[in-house]
Amino acid sequence: MQIVILLYPDMTALDAIGPYEVLARLPEAKLTFAAEAAGPVVADTGCLTLEAERGLSEIAAADLLLIPGGPGDAAVRENAKLTQEIRRLHEGTRFTTSVCTGSLILGAAGLLSGLRATTHWTQLETLREYGAEPTAERVVEQGKIITAAGVSSGIDMALRIAQKLVGDDFAQALQLGIEYDPQPPFDCGSPEKATPHVVEMVKAAMAR
Amino acid sequence: MQIVILLYPDMTALDAIGPYEVLARLPEAKLTFAAEAAGPVVADTGCLTLEAERGLSEIAAADLLLIPGGPGDAAVRENAKLTQEIRRLHEGTRFTTSVCTGSLILGAAGLLSGLRATTHWTQLETLREYGAEPTAERVVEQGKIITAAGVSSGIDMALRIAQKLVGDDFAQALQLGIEYDPQPPFDCGSPEKATPHVVEMVKAAMAR
Repeated sequence: MQIVILLYPDMTALDAIGPYEVLARLPEAKLTFAAEAAGPVVADTGCLTLEAERGLSEIAAADLLLIPGGPGDAAVRENAKLTQEIRRLHEGTRFTTSVCTGSLILGAAGLLSGLRATTHWTQLETLREYGAEPTAERVVEQGKIITAAGVSSGIDMALRIAQKLVGDDFAQALQLGIEYDPQPPFDCGSPEKATPHVVEMVKAAMAR
Repeated sequence: MQIVILLYPDMTALDAIGPYEVLARLPEAKLTFAAEAAGPVVADTGCLTLEAERGLSEIAAADLLLIPGGPGDAAVRENAKLTQEIRRLHEGTRFTTSVCTGSLILGAAGLLSGLRATTHWTQLETLREYGAEPTAERVVEQGKIITAAGVSSGIDMALRIAQKLVGDDFAQALQLGIEYDPQPPFDCGSPEKATPHVVEMVKAAMAR
C-alpha cells in the first residue's frame, strides 16, 4: 500500500498530518511525503518546516494520493509540472484524495470535471471553475476520488478510507488509538452553525 | 505570546500539529518548535520528519509550553537535561501543557505531583508514578498546567486555551477556520465507547 502525501510551500499542515496519523498506521502502509523536489517545505504559518522525502516525479506509483490545502494551493494550481504529475499518479491510484483547498488542485489537474466535490467552506464556489459541483458535505466520494472539507476534516476522511480498506474493527482501532472522541468547546465548526459575526471574521482573515 | 512546542524522536506528530494549527493563529503568537538540539526530528511512524528551529536550552522564556506524546516519551523522561529545561521554562509560563503521553514527561519533570492529570487512555496508571491522580477527562486543568488525553485531544485543548486567551469570538473563528465540525465514522474514540475486541487490539498494538 503506497501512500503519497503532497507537500508544498504555504500549505496547511494539519490537512496532511491529520490523515497521515491514520493512514501511516494501516497494515503494510508505506507512506511517503513528496514535494516538487525533495527537501524542506515551510507551512503557511511560517513557523513549521516539514521534510519532503522525494520529488513527486520520482514516485513511480501510488495506491493512495492525498493533496492537502492551504494558501499555497494557488501556486500549485498554476504549476503545470505538478498538476501533470498528479494526473499521472491518479491513473494508477485506488484513491485520489484531497483535504481543504487540495480539491482545487485536483480540479486544476482536470480530475473533478462533472463530479461533486468539497473544499474549505470559503472556497466552495471556486470548485465551479474546474467543472465540479460544490457540496458542503464533510467527505464527498465520487468513485475513487474523495474530497474532504476544511483542514480538520482530513481525519474523518482518513478513517472512512481505513474502513473501506481494512474493515470496521481495524478502522475503529485506529480511531481509538488516536483517541478521536472529539469534544470541541463550541458547536461552530461549519458556517451554518457559527454566528454571522464569526463567519465574517473567518472570511476577512481568509481574504488577507 | 511566545509559544514553544517540544519535538523529540518517536513522538506522535498529530499531538503537536493539531494544537499548533490553532495556537499559531492566535494574535501576536510567535510559535517555535524546539528539540534537544535544532535540526530534523523523525516521528514515531518513521516516515515524517519535522524541523526543530531551536534547541530547548536556547529558548529564554515561553508563555505557553506544549509537550506532545508518543513512544519516544520514555527517552525524554530519562533525559535529565531536557526535563530540567522543561522545569526552567515552566517557571515563567502562563500555561504548561501536554497532549497524550506528554503528561508523563511533565510528570518526570516533577510538575504533576498532587495534581489531577490525563494522558493516552492506555497509560493513565503510569501517571501515578509521578504522584499525579489519573483522570479520564479529555482536557484537565490544574492551575496553569493543562493536560489532554490521547493524540487528537490536543485540538480540543488548544481551542479551550484560545478561549481563555482571546475570548469566545476569536476562539470560535479559529474553530470555524479549521472547519472543526467532527464527523468521525464511529463513536469509538474512548475505551468506554469501543468494543472490548477493539480495545484489546489497541492495547496489543501499544504494547509492541
